[in-house]
This record gives sequence, C-alpha cells and structure tokens, in this order.
Amino acid sequence: MYKLASKDRRPHSVVRAAGVPFGGEGFTMIAGPCAVESRAQIERTACFVAEAGAQMLRAGAYKPRTSPYSFQGLGDDGVELIAQASRTAQIPAVVEAMSETDLPVLCRNVDMIQIGARNMQNFALLTAAARTGKPILLKRGPSATLDEVLYAAEYILIEGNPNVVLCERGIRGFDPQTRNVFDLAGALRLKELTHLPVIADPSHATGRASLIEPIVLAAAAAGLDGAIVEVHPDPPAALSDVEQALDFPAFTRLMGRLRALIQASPSNIPLAACR
Amino acid sequence: MYKLASKDRRPHSVVRAAGVPFGGEGFTMIAGPCAVESRAQIERTACFVAEAGAQMLRAGAYKPRTSPYSFQGLGDDGVELIAQASRTAQIPAVVEAMSETDLPVLCRNVDMIQIGARNMQNFALLTAAARTGKPILLKRGPSATLDEVLYAAEYILIEGNPNVVLCERGIRGFDPQTRNVFDLAGALRLKELTHLPVIADPSHATGRASLIEPIVLAAAAAGLDGAIVEVHPDPPAALSDVEQALDFPAFTRLMGRLRALIQASPSNIPLAACR
Amino acid sequence: MYKLASKDRRPHSVVRAAGVPFGGEGFTMIAGPCAVESRAQIERTACFVAEAGAQMLRAGAYKPRTSPYSFQGLGDDGVELIAQASRTAQIPAVVEAMSETDLPVLCRNVDMIQIGARNMQNFALLTAAARTGKPILLKRGPSATLDEVLYAAEYILIEGNPNVVLCERGIRGFDPQTRNVFDLAGALRLKELTHLPVIADPSHATGRASLIEPIVLAAAAAGLDGAIVEVHPDPPAALSDVEQALDFPAFTRLMGRLRALIQASPSNIPLAACR
Amino acid sequence: MYKLASKDRRPHSVVRAAGVPFGGEGFTMIAGPCAVESRAQIERTACFVAEAGAQMLRAGAYKPRTSPYSFQGLGDDGVELIAQASRTAQIPAVVEAMSETDLPVLCRNVDMIQIGARNMQNFALLTAAARTGKPILLKRGPSATLDEVLYAAEYILIEGNPNVVLCERGIRGFDPQTRNVFDLAGALRLKELTHLPVIADPSHATGRASLIEPIVLAAAAAGLDGAIVEVHPDPPAALSDVEQALDFPAFTRLMGRLRALIQASPSNIPLAACR
Repeated sequence: MYKLASKDRRPHSVVRAAGVPFGGEGFTMIAGPCAVESRAQIERTACFVAEAGAQMLRAGAYKPRTSPYSFQGLGDDGVELIAQASRTAQIPAVVEAMSETDLPVLCRNVDMIQIGARNMQNFALLTAAARTGKPILLKRGPSATLDEVLYAAEYILIEGNPNVVLCERGIRGFDPQTRNVFDLAGALRLKELTHLPVIADPSHATGRASLIEPIVLAAAAAGLDGAIVEVHPDPPAALSDVEQALDFPAFTRLMGRLRALIQASPSNIPLAACR
Repeated sequence: MYKLASKDRRPHSVVRAAGVPFGGEGFTMIAGPCAVESRAQIERTACFVAEAGAQMLRAGAYKPRTSPYSFQGLGDDGVELIAQASRTAQIPAVVEAMSETDLPVLCRNVDMIQIGARNMQNFALLTAAARTGKPILLKRGPSATLDEVLYAAEYILIEGNPNVVLCERGIRGFDPQTRNVFDLAGALRLKELTHLPVIADPSHATGRASLIEPIVLAAAAAGLDGAIVEVHPDPPAALSDVEQALDFPAFTRLMGRLRALIQASPSNIPLAACR
Repeated sequence: MYKLASKDRRPHSVVRAAGVPFGGEGFTMIAGPCAVESRAQIERTACFVAEAGAQMLRAGAYKPRTSPYSFQGLGDDGVELIAQASRTAQIPAVVEAMSETDLPVLCRNVDMIQIGARNMQNFALLTAAARTGKPILLKRGPSATLDEVLYAAEYILIEGNPNVVLCERGIRGFDPQTRNVFDLAGALRLKELTHLPVIADPSHATGRASLIEPIVLAAAAAGLDGAIVEVHPDPPAALSDVEQALDFPAFTRLMGRLRALIQASPSNIPLAACR
Repeated sequence: MYKLASKDRRPHSVVRAAGVPFGGEGFTMIAGPCAVESRAQIERTACFVAEAGAQMLRAGAYKPRTSPYSFQGLGDDGVELIAQASRTAQIPAVVEAMSETDLPVLCRNVDMIQIGARNMQNFALLTAAARTGKPILLKRGPSATLDEVLYAAEYILIEGNPNVVLCERGIRGFDPQTRNVFDLAGALRLKELTHLPVIADPSHATGRASLIEPIVLAAAAAGLDGAIVEVHPDPPAALSDVEQALDFPAFTRLMGRLRALIQASPSNIPLAACR
C-alpha cells in the first residue's frame, strides 16, 4: 500500500511552487497556451493571464504528440521563451518534462515540473524529476486507477520530495462527444485518500472550449484545489489543441465568474479565496 | 439524426411534473429512499425531505436488482405507500417503472415516471411510458453515448409526450473506488445538444454518501438543472443501496450549502433559485 | 451469489433447442440476416445457411434500434416469415423478443428466444421469457460484468427453465475501429464460472464483416460452444447492419475453414465436431 | 496519418530478431519468467522453454512496478543473467527497457528490446530505442487506440528502424474477473491497417494462468503472428505476476496443442508452421 501519499499521514498538505500555494484555502488557477509558439505569443499570454488573475503560467516546450508528424514543440529554446515571459509577467511557470534529459534545462528555468498523463507510470522519469527538488504537477494517466495515481506519487515522495500536486485530466471514455471523461468524483475521492492537493484540467478532459468554464466552476464548488486551463491569444491559429483553448475574453469571463462564486460563498461552502 | 430532442428545435424546455419545474432558472432537488420499505419509513422521509427543501420525492417500488435474491421492492403496495406519503407531505413523487405492466398503477398514483438506466433502451417500455402522458425521468444507461440517450428520448417525444427530463447517473468505469463514473462534462455537453433539462444522480454515479454533497454543488455551479439523491432515515439499516444514501442531518447540511451557493451567486453565475 | 448458474452445481450443461445441442462436444453455428426483410430474403438465406452447415437460423422481427427513425423490423408478420423459412429449410430458428408482448407469437413460431444485449437486465422480460419454457439465448450487455450476466441467467433459471445459452457480443470500448470489444477472455472465464454454454457473436462484437471468420475460428480453437453470425444475400442492400454481415461466399468459406479446423484437430485440442 | 506503418506501404513485413521471424508463415512463441530472479531460475527456464519449442526467451530485469515497494528487478545484473541463460540455452532474448539509460546494457546483451505498455507513448524512449537498431517489441498501452499504437510505431520507423513487432496485451476494462480485456478483434484489425507483425500477450491481458492456453490457440487460429507468455519454474513462489505464469507442465501441454493445431491445419486455414 502507498504510505507517504496516504491521508493517514496527515489531513492535507499545502504545496508551494514559487510561493503559489496549492491545497490550502484557495483555488489556484494555472493558465496558458498548450505550447509556446513564439516570443510574442507567450509574452502576450503570460501578461494577460497574470492580469486576469491566474497565479501560474502553463506552456509546453517539449510536446508529447501522438503523431511524429505533429508540431513537437520548441524544445530548449521554448523553455527559455517561457522563462522570459514568466519573468516579464511576474508569474511562475510550470512546464512538462518528457524525458530525463529535459530536466536540467527545466530546473534552471521554471518553477514546477509537469509529468504528463502519458508518462504517469514512466517510473524512471518520476524518480529523476523528484530528485530535482522542484514541485511536481503529476497528471493522472487516461486509464489509471486512483491507486495507481497514488503509487506514482509515492515514487516521487519516496525520493524526499514532498511537493506533489495531482491533476485529474480525464480518463479514456467511449463517447466521441468529449475528448476524455472528466472524473470529478474520482478527483474528490482522491482527496479522501490522500493529503496531496488535487486540481482539474478541463481542457484536456473535455477537449471543448465551451465546457471549460462550467467544469472550473464545478471544481471550485466541489472543493478541488485549482484548475489548469489552456488560453491562447487566437485559438483557431494555435499549433496544437485548437479546439480546447479559451481566447482572452472567455478567460476573463471565467475568472470573473469564478471570483464571484468564491467571494460570494458563505463560510459553510467549501470554497476558498482566489487570488 | 434525432430531431425532436435537438437544440435546433428550441434553446431550452421547461418540463413540469405536478407543477415542479425542471430546466428553468431553478435547480430542482429530488430526494428520498432507494426503495419504499414501510409506511413509517416513506412517510417520515417524505415529510423530512419536503421540509428540508426538496421539491420532489423519489422512492422505488419495483426494484431492478442485479440478483434475484436481493430485495425486489414492495410492488404495487409500495406505490400506494409512496402515493400516501406524497399526499401527506405535499410533495410530488417520481417512481421507476420496470415493465409496461407497472404503468397503470404508476399512472394513477405518481406524478412522474422514471425509466432506469438498465431500461434506457427498452424501447417498448419507453413507448408505453410515453403514451401515459406522464412526465418521464429518463436515466442514461451505463454505457450509453449521448447520441443514444437522445435517441431514447426521441422514442418518447415522437409519441407526443414532450415532458422528458434526462439524468446523468454515471457510466461504467474501471476503478472500484467509485460505483460508476459521474460524467459531468457529458451532462453539460448533453445540454448543448438538446433543449431538454438534464439533472444529476450522484448517489448512483458515485455509490458513496460522502461524495453526494460536493457533486450536487458542482452540478449546480456548472449549470445542470437539478439532482436526485438518496435519503434514508437510517442508511445502515436500508434494504438496498446502504452505502450511497444520506441520513437526515447530511441532507439538511447539503440543502443549506446548496441554498447558500445559489442565493449568494451574483447574476453572472449560471445558478438559479432553489425553492 | 448466483446459485443455479454456478459451476459448483455441475461441470457443464448441454442445452438443446429443437434438437440442436449447445455445450457438448460440438461447435454450434447460428446464421442468418440481422432482420427478416421479405419472404424471398429469409427463405433464400435459410436454405443457404442450412445447406452450408449452420445448425440454426437467426433473424430479427422486432428490432431494437437506437433511433426510432431506423427500420424497426416486420414485427409479427416477420416472425411468421421466419417460421415458414425455418420449416422450408428444415433449420430451427432463434428470434429476439423485445417485449413481453412479443412472447406469445414467438412461442408459437420459433425454437429459441433471444434476449438482446440492451435487455439483459430487463428483469420483467427475463422472467416472462423464462416462463414460456423455450430455450433462451441471453446476450451479454455492453457494460455487464460477468457476475451481472450470471445473475441475469439466474433470473431465468430460478423460474424452472434450465435452457440458457450465454452469448458474448462485445463490450463497449473506446476505439472506433471496432463496433465493440470482443471479450474472448471474458467468455472463457464465464465458462469457468458457470456450467451454461457460451457462444460468440462476432458480427455485433466487431461490426466488421472481415473480422467474423477469424473470430469464429478463434472461438472454436479456444473452446467456446458456438457462434452466431449475420449472413445476408446482399449485405450492401441490407436494411440494417450493412457492415457486419457476411455474403454467401464468405459464409461458405468460413464454414469450410471451421470444418477443417475442427475435423483436423487431434483429440488433445479442445475442439469438437461441427455438424 | 501514419505512413511508414501503413498497410498501403506493403502487405506485410517479416521482422527478424537474431534470426527468429515474426510475421511470416509461422506462429512465434516467446516464453519466460516475468522477471529474472536468480541465475538458477533463468537458466532452468531458458533451457526448458527452448526445449519445449519456444523460439525466444522473455524476462524482465528493469521492472515497471505500480508500487515502489514491489520487487523492482535485478537491473543491469539481471540483464547479464538473462544473456548468459540465453547463450546457454541457445535461445535469443527480449528484455524491456524502462528508460533510455537502460539501452546500452540491453544493446550489448539481448536480441530484442521491449517497450512496455506504460511507456508506449514515452516518445523519448521510443526514439532512443529505435536508434539502437535493435528489433523492438512494442506493447499496446492499456487505453491506446489502434491509431495511437501505429503512431507510436511510426516514431520508431521514422528513425530508420523497420523492425517493429506489435503486441496486444489487453486494454483496461471494468470487470475484475480478468486483469485487462484481451482485444483480439483489435489485434486483427491492426493487421488490416499495418504490415507490421502483431502478437498476443495472454498473461498480462488476462492475469489468469488458466486462460493462457485457450487465448494462444485462439490467436493462432485467428491468424496473429505469435504470442508471449509467462513461464516460471514455480509460479506460486515468483517475485511478481504470481497468478499469470504457467508452470512447466502447463507450457508443455500448451506447446503440444499449439503444434497439433498448426500441423493438422489444412492449407486453407490461416495457420502456419511453428518451430
């Protein structure tokens, strides 16, 4: 059985990435493009999402793409563009590592390392990422049980790195109407089993921009610890994930409704202060 | 393609069952035991849930049980007990039909007829239930695509009965931690495809009493039209669904939080007035 | 726990429908069109499949169709056409019941009653069909566990009708390349849990005519008790299941290979004599 | 769309690993323990399976285990033990790589490199393994579509390494009766889409020793290109996969039946000569 990840260990943990808390009273928003595409794109997006109230920037530099013929990301150069945008906009950044060889550049440049769904059980990568000491955002694999998620987290914790945030990004389903099945109850059950924070990724879970806002509001009302959403200055022109990114006005609207939901909530609702 | 169920037909419908609206501004709560077990049990529960703010009573009389050795419900006598409790507590009732032969008794006694998940594609039953003219609560089957749900609704609508409420009650999943997978994004996508109201059944979706409250709050925040939850005076003593019924204090707490969530919501949040 | 269906009861049962055995040494082939469409179509097909070596004729008269706008079958008239073709070709017939009201006509005209996948947990229909005394072909629902299949069989057995043949017809999967996922290991595991015969339905399991032959050969080599396949004189012109029916030459080829596989098998292979 | 993996490219490929062919007329058996545990265990097993007719030895040295508390394999030392056993028994070996850092030792010591199901979309590993020039055994991930499998293969082929063998090892299912769902029709459909050989892994697919033999016979009868099965001198004492390994007598029986099935098959059955 997993030990370090277990709720028996402590009721809940607050994980901090460059000062941004996950798992406390607040609902933490991470936003940004699927992939960094250019200096202008990432800077503009970073400044926008920071201004709109996101606490952390997301963007991919090494992209795990189903097809080798799809855009594979800007690699190390992309990480530097993200890092510059992060500094300019004064918003910490999380970037996915696809391989152990990506870790040194990520360590020097970003505040949190993401392990993607396809690599949730890439145990060599989990261990190497843990040893960097950076906070880790660990996404649930598309067919991972909750036990498997917690054992994957245990591979990180056992290396002495306690800073793990879990992320529900949808499990494989049978209906093409949504890209995956957002398992809200699974994410909530995860919080009953572990002290680690759990956030939602409605972009990958649903694959539809129109469903991102209601899923984020639902996650907040239900008591999850945050969300990570794709935002792009011009979604139809994006090099990846065209269908599931919010444009700027949609993100502004989402943040307004989220803030209203949280601020208006009386103390007996399990919602907490957004930034 | 389905026609009468399509959003192209109209933006949204309000379905009324004995005056209780589904699909308008409000979030409609249905509550009650899995099955009627005795006059005392159903009367006590009916009065309690009505008092606590539920708008409709649920209870099973004909129980679709996986095993023939499980409690099969009180049958016609059960329907009469539910009807009496409904009158006493002045709260309309919805009861599941398992067979065409159940329909006459249900028609005389209850306000809405439920078609359960196992019978979602029992087309003979759909047609016969539609012809009673009663409003129908149609649950999504555990492996039904959204298209299949809408075609099942079409079997009812095509008979001239426009009063169909759809219900997401969880799809079959691979993780034993929850009984099914509550497909929130599927339910929201359903509302993009159809004008019919869509409610949530967190009891059957999760199989865990502890997850009912957060799922109901999530459903309300995301903009679904209501929820149906199991409430029992003494869940550990229930003859069925022991694990997934709320006791009275838990339902009171849920209704308090739901009311707070809804009343506090500023107008730019897609939430509406509970009773 | 199920009792009457359990392997503890006896090692295996042979079920006979009009003399056709399921579950003994042989591998029993059922073949015919998805639906009866005309007297000429069903007679021609019945004579052909009987000649080619099938032991039983299949055809639908009451069709459970996802959409109310699809061809719904010829109903009672269709049953009579099937019965006439069955007599002409001297091959017993199995026809699906969709409702209790279909049972009297089926009882008078056919040799085995099918309960389809969508009705596997239509307990009222299971009970009523059992009481006719006819042998029952019970298909596994698309998201049914093996336990649920066996409990559904138990609903029939408990009525005193021991003649139940189970059928694996594919479970719901995530890949659109096949219509469902043919669960061969599940079907084999079923035979470890129960004494009832288990056959395969590769037409519905795969939705692809090209996969029917290899799946039938696999089922025979693995030790299942038979198969039910769709055969149509002119598949592209069929009113339903266009993609998953074999034409006559393909069925002849399948039967030749199946016969060769079975006859050639030395005694230490778990294969048995085809007709 | 994938290109190099496509059937459009050529009808079928024969992949050779140290002379052992996959994809031609034969049905190729790979056998051995889940993990190498000791010199005695692997030597004894290698000699036994070679003698019994297996053409290739399998054994794990770097074990991808769900829990960090489970036996993790003997690592580099294990690879050397496997290599010695392989030489002693004169049977080529396939061993799984979990990380790019495992590749140099594997390259020097074994004949084929396995990419496991959890790493099917570990694109960095796919690319690095491809560049070794060794033949690759690529397992389908538990929720991978056939397209995703073929794109993963494309990542290898695009590096100029044409020697890829695909393996169906079960997809995630909902029924605890089997460990996964063996997708026979998916494996057959894969052969319609690609020229690459496709084999079956009934041990991981089913998790039950009793189901291995019938699944192997089914795979052979249906026309797959081989199978990989777990064999252990004393399965109850194995350090991993206790439930799904054959003991020696069971493997002998399996090989006898497989040989009989294949040798007895007349030329019109799509079965071919075993060693």
